[in-house]
Amino acid sequence: MPCSITRPLVIFGDRWTLLILKFAFSGVRRFNAFQSALGISRSRLQDRLDRLIEHEILVKQKAAVGAHEEYRLTQKGHDIYPILMAIRDWGDTYMAPDGPPVRYAHRDCTGEVHAKLECDVCGSAVTARDVTPEPGPGLLGPELDADQSVNQVAT
Amino acid sequence: MPCSITRPLVIFGDRWTLLILKFAFSGVRRFNAFQSALGISRSRLQDRLDRLIEHEILVKQKAAVGAHEEYRLTQKGHDIYPILMAIRDWGDTYMAPDGPPVRYAHRDCTGEVHAKLECDVCGSAVTARDVTPEPGPGLLGPELDADQSVNQVAT
Repeated sequence: MPCSITRPLVIFGDRWTLLILKFAFSGVRRFNAFQSALGISRSRLQDRLDRLIEHEILVKQKAAVGAHEEYRLTQKGHDIYPILMAIRDWGDTYMAPDGPPVRYAHRDCTGEVHAKLECDVCGSAVTARDVTPEPGPGLLGPELDADQSVNQVAT
Repeated sequence: MPCSITRPLVIFGDRWTLLILKFAFSGVRRFNAFQSALGISRSRLQDRLDRLIEHEILVKQKAAVGAHEEYRLTQKGHDIYPILMAIRDWGDTYMAPDGPPVRYAHRDCTGEVHAKLECDVCGSAVTARDVTPEPGPGLLGPELDADQSVNQVAT
């Protein structure tokens, strides 16, 4: 059954990959800097970086200054930030007994940035209890009518 | 260095755990139902369920009807939903060539629900480029002054 939560887990269901992305967002770009930040073996790091390049989340390119090569986030990579921020919000709530270790400030107004679940139409803040999964266009193939497919949505 | 992204990855940096949570949100409660939905070995499933119970994300309790036991999300577990929705938004954008397989509708108004990154103060939608990490209360120990700790924020 197609599911847009399951599909990305091929990439994100891995601690090292999410940590690499976290450091990429904090400005780490070089292989050795990732290795030293993560304390990971070179072969494992190379494997994860290669997969992120294959998925077009990172791109490897020559640095603007110097002869070395850098790993940079693509736009597809940048769009992962809300996932990390949602993880961080949960971590701040449940795994930060001394308070949030890092404050994520909005550059323009110094307010705090959080990942929020919202309704596009009415703008309400919602929780899992307010959400009804329904078949979307990517589920409704030509051989399924809407009534049949409703029963197949288990997401 | 304390970090509220790194800490939860002990739990979420695992494909099976996130899949278990996805199915828990869709109403799966029984061991055999998880096993059949995931196609996972019994020992691996038990291991992941035990860890989710240990972290108080699931609770194991006798079903209201019948003699069997059920795994239910706690409030701490329910609060994981925005993480799954942020993953789903990214999946819908980048891994759903036929369109979103599932539409997540707001129960009250049938609008669509999305995970959004927002500033608490001005309400603007923000991206990674608009965010400045700063030391938070959980980082500022008694032996660190603010100036020192700024340089230690790498998140």
